[in-house]
Amino acid sequence: MDYRRALIVGAGSGLSASLARLFAKSGMNVAVAARRAENLAALAQEIGGKAFTCDSTDRDQVDKLFADVEAAGGAPDVVVYNASYRTRGPFVDLDPVEVERALAVTAYGGFLVAQQAAKRMVPKGHGAIMLTGASAGVKGYPQSAPFAMGKFALRGLAQSMARELAPKGLHVAHFVIDGGISRGPDDPRGGRGPDGLLAPSAIAETYLHVHDQARSAWTWEVELRPWVESF
Amino acid sequence: MDYRRALIVGAGSGLSASLARLFAKSGMNVAVAARRAENLAALAQEIGGKAFTCDSTDRDQVDKLFADVEAAGGAPDVVVYNASYRTRGPFVDLDPVEVERALAVTAYGGFLVAQQAAKRMVPKGHGAIMLTGASAGVKGYPQSAPFAMGKFALRGLAQSMARELAPKGLHVAHFVIDGGISRGPDDPRGGRGPDGLLAPSAIAETYLHVHDQARSAWTWEVELRPWVESF
Amino acid sequence: MDYRRALIVGAGSGLSASLARLFAKSGMNVAVAARRAENLAALAQEIGGKAFTCDSTDRDQVDKLFADVEAAGGAPDVVVYNASYRTRGPFVDLDPVEVERALAVTAYGGFLVAQQAAKRMVPKGHGAIMLTGASAGVKGYPQSAPFAMGKFALRGLAQSMARELAPKGLHVAHFVIDGGISRGPDDPRGGRGPDGLLAPSAIAETYLHVHDQARSAWTWEVELRPWVESF
Amino acid sequence: MDYRRALIVGAGSGLSASLARLFAKSGMNVAVAARRAENLAALAQEIGGKAFTCDSTDRDQVDKLFADVEAAGGAPDVVVYNASYRTRGPFVDLDPVEVERALAVTAYGGFLVAQQAAKRMVPKGHGAIMLTGASAGVKGYPQSAPFAMGKFALRGLAQSMARELAPKGLHVAHFVIDGGISRGPDDPRGGRGPDGLLAPSAIAETYLHVHDQARSAWTWEVELRPWVESF
Repeated sequence: MDYRRALIVGAGSGLSASLARLFAKSGMNVAVAARRAENLAALAQEIGGKAFTCDSTDRDQVDKLFADVEAAGGAPDVVVYNASYRTRGPFVDLDPVEVERALAVTAYGGFLVAQQAAKRMVPKGHGAIMLTGASAGVKGYPQSAPFAMGKFALRGLAQSMARELAPKGLHVAHFVIDGGISRGPDDPRGGRGPDGLLAPSAIAETYLHVHDQARSAWTWEVELRPWVESF
Repeated sequence: MDYRRALIVGAGSGLSASLARLFAKSGMNVAVAARRAENLAALAQEIGGKAFTCDSTDRDQVDKLFADVEAAGGAPDVVVYNASYRTRGPFVDLDPVEVERALAVTAYGGFLVAQQAAKRMVPKGHGAIMLTGASAGVKGYPQSAPFAMGKFALRGLAQSMARELAPKGLHVAHFVIDGGISRGPDDPRGGRGPDGLLAPSAIAETYLHVHDQARSAWTWEVELRPWVESF
Repeated sequence: MDYRRALIVGAGSGLSASLARLFAKSGMNVAVAARRAENLAALAQEIGGKAFTCDSTDRDQVDKLFADVEAAGGAPDVVVYNASYRTRGPFVDLDPVEVERALAVTAYGGFLVAQQAAKRMVPKGHGAIMLTGASAGVKGYPQSAPFAMGKFALRGLAQSMARELAPKGLHVAHFVIDGGISRGPDDPRGGRGPDGLLAPSAIAETYLHVHDQARSAWTWEVELRPWVESF
Repeated sequence: MDYRRALIVGAGSGLSASLARLFAKSGMNVAVAARRAENLAALAQEIGGKAFTCDSTDRDQVDKLFADVEAAGGAPDVVVYNASYRTRGPFVDLDPVEVERALAVTAYGGFLVAQQAAKRMVPKGHGAIMLTGASAGVKGYPQSAPFAMGKFALRGLAQSMARELAPKGLHVAHFVIDGGISRGPDDPRGGRGPDGLLAPSAIAETYLHVHDQARSAWTWEVELRPWVESF
């Protein structure tokens, strides 16, 4: 198999940048997309890729993103959905508008992106769709109902897709990121000691490994957490 | 504890009617709500309760529903959310509008209703909020991503609420209905033999039991399936 | 259905006594068994039932127990397995003899008892087998590998049995007791406030409810925890 | 980190041989152990490693195995437990002796091996212990209670160990092998089409990846299945 083009949606965070770099280093042509492409210009230049503007909760923008990516170099063989939105607080004080937004960004946008990806992959019989989840997708924490709703929904989407699309040759994978992602050596949350937060470059290695798995032994879900994280 | 008022939202199906009847029989004053209250008139009359019109995906209508129920007899002590919406089909052919609707009716409406319920129960330090889930909420089936997204999200909501609100005296419970609900003795899906579909009156007995549990031994989730259902 | 005879194995603890009392009160003829029957004499007298001596890890004793119960009044229609054994400590310091014992009492004894029960129930096409699990059966805690091994194994047994035997009319249920069981109003662990420990009589109510479920809506697993227990 | 010595227990099957070859190719010194070391002679020679005889259910033999491995070249940095035993059939017909054996080989032997490994790794603050599970460890299938008991217990062991030992620097991982492992191109179960069974060499790649993960992003459990396997 010779996957060459990756698209990372929801880019901007440390994980997206690390994925973009590692995928590029492994020989892929990498496009990145976010609500504000200007934030991605430096990254795109670094990896020799293209940056696109897209609000992943807007159907038309997602359609256009995939059309543009395709026009620019071909449909992607690997698509990662990385966007999410959360709000926290006592359940009775949550703003319903924020709950809608958490569902829209975290789950519905994932559907829109995954569907456009699958439409291009299913006819070819191969491709990989990777969805970035969180511990909130397997455990509903107090004071965090909106994020739980969004990440649970994303996991349900991933599982349904994996069951339907794996036999069509598409590798759908869901990553349970269980812990804080490090923003660098000076991350103030670093008080947990060395490697106490997830290094985005370390997470990216596992995405690449799952991408490289032979189809006789595919993983649909993998949890990642720092060694010192209680769970 | 002396719970007296129940509100069942998403009424109309066999399960809602059975719940309404059993709750009424056990001594509760029962209100029912659905998008078209006229469908509930006969049921309301039968149980000596009131029927309300409410689109549970509309924040203003949900606010008004609770205000009206409160005005009519007092805030409910038990609230059941029973509404859901699904669409099926090959993943690449799903209509995004239907996906949004599945999330809105199945999960977001559950949030709106549960939040209005909790706002009234938390100050009193007691009450029960019951959410009707499905096997789709713990297992994402092929060709059914929208329902998986909605029911997973509802389960995440329920788990987050249970963790936060139980110590405040609110019993939050999630029911995993795993199998078809019988529409009566002539249900054409009855080919699985006697009791091969879930009798709504049997399901209702378990909701009532969970409601009646002492707070020293509360259940937050319970699965129900017909004896012949493979799982 | 007219179940009349219950057998509770591993009796002695507060839960077994509460189950025996509630089952007797609901009209069942109740037998209790434990390694030392003399400890059960008062309970047996109170409920008008019989007490038997049985080490549930010994195949011959389990065979004899069922033969004796059958001879004394008929094969049981409801069998509860309640015995368990645990040891705790740093993983590297665990005594392998204690690990073997935890597996034997918690899981293997459950198999022996359940099999003798099933042998008598399958030909009749009805009966209930209830296995008492723990949070340790769904979550492996640190410094508690032996109990995790035993209770996970018991849960695997229950799930395999439920899938196989439900279509034969046997209701197999597994109870996840998540929290400490109260030993009475003076339990020193009562510092968590009122109802902060599981009242055995409250747990028993849910066992009886599950027993009474109609076969069109059976539960195979139910979790129980005090309202204040974090999970 | 510079792990150099691996020990694979329960060797003989396709997976163990593939692991031994891949670990050796990646630069490790690999020892293999099984009940009959003579079956491992060719493999040991091929990978330039040593073969040991050990019944993993016998405490003294496991103690001796680790002492011998240590004497031969140093304590292992990576230990894989691969042994299991199963028996199938109607629940009421299962032979209790076989159930004991399934628990002993599949779970208790895993404990004995893991404990000897941990005793040597904890003082050093690093090492990896990998336990080979199965879908039977997360789902109890009908007519397969003994294997469910053994593999559930093994998973409980792995989870308890991971929670306790990860903060001490030990990477404990559990692999859920969901599907048949191919015995080669002529495997008669190959009727599922190309790559329809798990290639042991493909499984081994994921073990090696998990071994190579940086400790800021460790996986404790990963599922592997062929692309065409329904789940």
